[in-house]
Amino acid sequence: MRHEYFLEQVVNNARVNVSDGGGPFAALVVCAGKIIGSGVNRVTSMCDPSAHAEVMAIRDACNKLSSHQLTGCILYSSCEPCPMCLGAIYWSRLDKVYYAATHQQAAQAGFDDSHIYQQINVEPGNRVIPFQHMALSSAFKPFEAWNDAAGSRIDY
Amino acid sequence: MRHEYFLEQVVNNARVNVSDGGGPFAALVVCAGKIIGSGVNRVTSMCDPSAHAEVMAIRDACNKLSSHQLTGCILYSSCEPCPMCLGAIYWSRLDKVYYAATHQQAAQAGFDDSHIYQQINVEPGNRVIPFQHMALSSAFKPFEAWNDAAGSRIDY
Repeated sequence: MRHEYFLEQVVNNARVNVSDGGGPFAALVVCAGKIIGSGVNRVTSMCDPSAHAEVMAIRDACNKLSSHQLTGCILYSSCEPCPMCLGAIYWSRLDKVYYAATHQQAAQAGFDDSHIYQQINVEPGNRVIPFQHMALSSAFKPFEAWNDAAGSRIDY
Repeated sequence: MRHEYFLEQVVNNARVNVSDGGGPFAALVVCAGKIIGSGVNRVTSMCDPSAHAEVMAIRDACNKLSSHQLTGCILYSSCEPCPMCLGAIYWSRLDKVYYAATHQQAAQAGFDDSHIYQQINVEPGNRVIPFQHMALSSAFKPFEAWNDAAGSRIDY
C-alpha cells in the first residue's frame, strides 16, 4: 500500500536522523506519487526551534516548486504534527496528512506538546507565556499600506 | 514607555515591508532591552509558508545566540500571532509577547487565521485537511533510537 510505503520511509528517516544528531522525527511531501520535499528535525543542530521535520519538508517542497502553496500534495510524518506544524500545514494548503506515531506515543518518549494544544484555547493574556495586546493608533497602518498596494502583487 | 517603543518600531517595519514586497507583518525579539532578532513576513517572496514575521524573528534571534531557546526574551509583533507562530513561541520558550493589531483587525484586512484556531480542536481525522493515523509496528523505533543515544547529546 502506497501510503504505508511512504510512512515506513519517514519512520526510517526519523530513526536514522537520531544518529545524525537530530531529533527522532522525519517528514516527506509527496505530489502525484513523487517525493518533492523531505525534512528531518534539526531544532538543536540548526539552533532553530521551528526546524521540525514537517516544517522542513514543507519548506523543501515549496522551494522545489517555487510556490508557497502545496495544494494537491500529501504530507507523511513519522509523528502526529504539533500545533506549530499544524499551522504550517494549513498555511501551505496541503491536501492530507498521514502520520505514524501518535502524540501520546511521542509524550511517552518525552516529546509532549499537549501543553501547547491546551494554551491555544486560553485567553491570550492568561497564557503561561502571556500574549499582551497594546492598542496603538498606528496598528492598522500596515494593512492600509497592503490595501493601497493591491493589484501590484501576486495573490496571497 | 519601552514596550510601546518596540511595538511602534515593529508596526513601522510591517508597513515598510509591504513596499519591499512582503506581507504587512513584522516582529522583533528583545533581550535585556536590546534587539537581538528581527523578522518580517516573507511568505510569498521566499516561497516559504512558515516565513511569518514571528518565526523569522525567532530564527534570527536563535541564530545570533547560537541557541534553540530564547528564555528571558520578549517578542514584539505587529499583529497577534497565528497558531503556527504560537507554537514556535512556546517551543522557543520566550518570556512574553506584546502585539499591536488583534486577529480581528487582521481578519478585517483579509488575513483570517480563525479557521486554523478552530481546526486545532477538531479530531485529527475530521479536519478540513484530514490528519490520518496509520498504526505501524515500526512507529516507536525512532524514539527507541533516541533513548538509546541518551547521554551523548545536549538537552532537548
